[in-house]
Amino acid sequence: MQIQVDSTRPQPLVEQIVSAIRGQIDDRILRPGMRLPPIRRLAEHQQVSRFTVVEAYDRLVAQGYLDSRRGSGFYVASRNLPEPEQEDPERVERAIDAAWLMRALGSEGEGRITAASGSLPASWMEEDAVMRNLRQLTRSAESRVTSYGTPQGFAPLRDQLQLRLAEVGIRTQPSQIVLTYGATQALDLVARYFLKAGDAVLVDDPGYWNVFASFRLQGLRLLGVPRNEDGPDLAALEDFLAHEQPRLFFTQSLLHNPTSSCISPAIAFRLLQLAEKHDFMIVDDDIYGDMLPGGGTRLAALDQLQRVIHVGSYSKTISGNLRVGFLAARPDLARALTDVKITTTLSSPELAERMVHLMLTEGHYHKYIDRLQTRLQRATERTCRMLERIGLRADFEPKGGQFVWMQVPGVADTTAMARHAVEEGIILAPGSVFRSNAQPSGYLRFNVATSEHPRLERFISEQLSR
Amino acid sequence: MQIQVDSTRPQPLVEQIVSAIRGQIDDRILRPGMRLPPIRRLAEHQQVSRFTVVEAYDRLVAQGYLDSRRGSGFYVASRNLPEPEQEDPERVERAIDAAWLMRALGSEGEGRITAASGSLPASWMEEDAVMRNLRQLTRSAESRVTSYGTPQGFAPLRDQLQLRLAEVGIRTQPSQIVLTYGATQALDLVARYFLKAGDAVLVDDPGYWNVFASFRLQGLRLLGVPRNEDGPDLAALEDFLAHEQPRLFFTQSLLHNPTSSCISPAIAFRLLQLAEKHDFMIVDDDIYGDMLPGGGTRLAALDQLQRVIHVGSYSKTISGNLRVGFLAARPDLARALTDVKITTTLSSPELAERMVHLMLTEGHYHKYIDRLQTRLQRATERTCRMLERIGLRADFEPKGGQFVWMQVPGVADTTAMARHAVEEGIILAPGSVFRSNAQPSGYLRFNVATSEHPRLERFISEQLSR
Repeated sequence: MQIQVDSTRPQPLVEQIVSAIRGQIDDRILRPGMRLPPIRRLAEHQQVSRFTVVEAYDRLVAQGYLDSRRGSGFYVASRNLPEPEQEDPERVERAIDAAWLMRALGSEGEGRITAASGSLPASWMEEDAVMRNLRQLTRSAESRVTSYGTPQGFAPLRDQLQLRLAEVGIRTQPSQIVLTYGATQALDLVARYFLKAGDAVLVDDPGYWNVFASFRLQGLRLLGVPRNEDGPDLAALEDFLAHEQPRLFFTQSLLHNPTSSCISPAIAFRLLQLAEKHDFMIVDDDIYGDMLPGGGTRLAALDQLQRVIHVGSYSKTISGNLRVGFLAARPDLARALTDVKITTTLSSPELAERMVHLMLTEGHYHKYIDRLQTRLQRATERTCRMLERIGLRADFEPKGGQFVWMQVPGVADTTAMARHAVEEGIILAPGSVFRSNAQPSGYLRFNVATSEHPRLERFISEQLSR
Repeated sequence: MQIQVDSTRPQPLVEQIVSAIRGQIDDRILRPGMRLPPIRRLAEHQQVSRFTVVEAYDRLVAQGYLDSRRGSGFYVASRNLPEPEQEDPERVERAIDAAWLMRALGSEGEGRITAASGSLPASWMEEDAVMRNLRQLTRSAESRVTSYGTPQGFAPLRDQLQLRLAEVGIRTQPSQIVLTYGATQALDLVARYFLKAGDAVLVDDPGYWNVFASFRLQGLRLLGVPRNEDGPDLAALEDFLAHEQPRLFFTQSLLHNPTSSCISPAIAFRLLQLAEKHDFMIVDDDIYGDMLPGGGTRLAALDQLQRVIHVGSYSKTISGNLRVGFLAARPDLARALTDVKITTTLSSPELAERMVHLMLTEGHYHKYIDRLQTRLQRATERTCRMLERIGLRADFEPKGGQFVWMQVPGVADTTAMARHAVEEGIILAPGSVFRSNAQPSGYLRFNVATSEHPRLERFISEQLSR
């Protein structure tokens, strides 16, 4: 066997041996069933320690390249794996819906423009601080990570969230806070606890597509409350309430997705009055609130969690990867929702929760958020100008946040445009994805951090002039 | 303000200042509204850099101890938080059910004996390897963690799982594997996809309590199939199938929880025949299989995922905290279940998945599992002898795994015993928790890694002699 290790190269010796042998197996120089040199011989020949060879062989076994036969040595494995399947043609033909969008954004592609993205690029976030804190965690004797986390979530992070919520006027106990796998799980827990198949549920229209998909999965009937610049359209809401008795209204008070509109204090107050009168709860999905300069009106700050379940997340500002969100609710509800969490995902990922706790307590979060707010405001302004230049129209200009919601004049449904865009390497978010019952929409949602590209500008111009 | 920092102490200067000031605020030496010394003055006075003081003040702001007023300096915050609530008396009175058990195990307690634990103590696991790999990840430029993971899960881990499954005779594509938040989420996704409220579902009886709770939440009717030493009781199963048309059977082929029994090849074959004849799918929750010496019969290894959805997890052997599990299913099902995953939790925690991937590929996992199997076998034997000595009886002796399921002679329901045990600092798992409809049970489940305590032996002896 011809391999060459070199102790002066930066790559560790073990890895050099592993990749050399793997290369020969991949190239079929070493073939299934062939015996590898005994450990001692290879070690002598390469002038490395036997330990190094043992380690390399072990890894190759773990990776499926070698078989170890007790007492007899190591052999090239017959990698009896099925051939990769062909790309499913059905998949390509599938509708341009939310699941499609999610997949399109999840897949890789050189030079793609992801105007449809729901989150900020890594370069906008505190990647270095996250990695630094992660390193700190791995050096701390406290962060033992083999055992299960607690059902309700890492207590010091819940203490910290109590403080954060107090800052925006929401008074809670840590025992009223339940940590979740992102806001997505929080919304799901609430829906599962309160609702059963066939029930009606109020949602923003347009609104967050994933909530719609989740509710449809649960067999709920979605009542889409139109969204205005100053919050939900209460006249339309009252129309629903005249005929239906929904138990929940899922809404976003601040920087609503996709419009980036914020509820006004007056609408917030009347909405809470309606909730009282018609006996429904409001779930306020406050995942973008930190991005709003100068604060805004949160429903829970008015009613102190009596009829409001407040949901938050650090997926948008710290890390979507860690999956740390939370809900704050009345004590009885917090306890019941913890039980639902246990039955569906057992416990919390404590390591991720420790990470977020460190990020929030080390003192830089506020400054980062200040910078982020300014950066987003400027990008919002530039993106609006760019899109207006080529003929798109915003119903109003957002005060901040990561989205702008633009109407495409003369286009009743932007779905076809999104389909064409994919062929040009541009992922657009068509408005119908955000409609509560996938109705056609002449709008597009743009992420202001990922949309400033001449190629995108050109593409839309061309579409409009056809 | 009297504080004293000392650069020769190991604690960083920033932390010394933070804890000194925090202490004075907690002791109400510094009171709400009092102004802190200006940064420059404190820095000069303590002979530290201004940067150090800024950092310390920032942390104290983040932790809610100080307020920063622009242009005016730092003030002790009026920590206007609600008083902690009294322990809810209702909570103490609640039934000894699965949720109670989960909470009891989740709470801390000096010197407690957690015979009811569902997992192995950290000392039985590869804590150091997990921490080492975590450190390695934080040094790698690849592990960028601010962005979302992929919907289906970290691709290299799915590749690795393809290999692992091939080793036990299950042939899959990585595209058929969906990573989940532990096996718990995998089971939940499957139930939500296939079943709706009112549907009947087959489960092991006794079986995994969390599955029962989750199904009840979904409004399903649980049909408990009695569990024998060699697998499900097929005569009882056929009785159900004569009257009902369940679409799913949730079972554990290997090291079934709580009995640690394993299905025989003959029962496995006949079970698959029944599934074919009566058109139901089998969900095989294979989370303990790695603990079984010499392997065993997995349903998916027989039918190659035609009627079987295979579920696994590394929560039991690597880390319950990382929450990495998976399911393997027919390609069409894998795709549909990925969509359900997206709607309920959005995406995967890639950092955790990278960790498990490292653990599996670095080459030590097999050896660790070999050692663990031996250790568990010995502990099983010792625990059985200890419990038999004081009069408990096993229907059969497990071949491995972490549980023994023992009958308490003369006791029709072990719930009262578990309630008494808590007062003695012993957490016992009463059999009724594992019954499909919480029927009384004269059994107890013991974790062999946490039950060898003279105090536990004495407690049960005393209970039996009363």
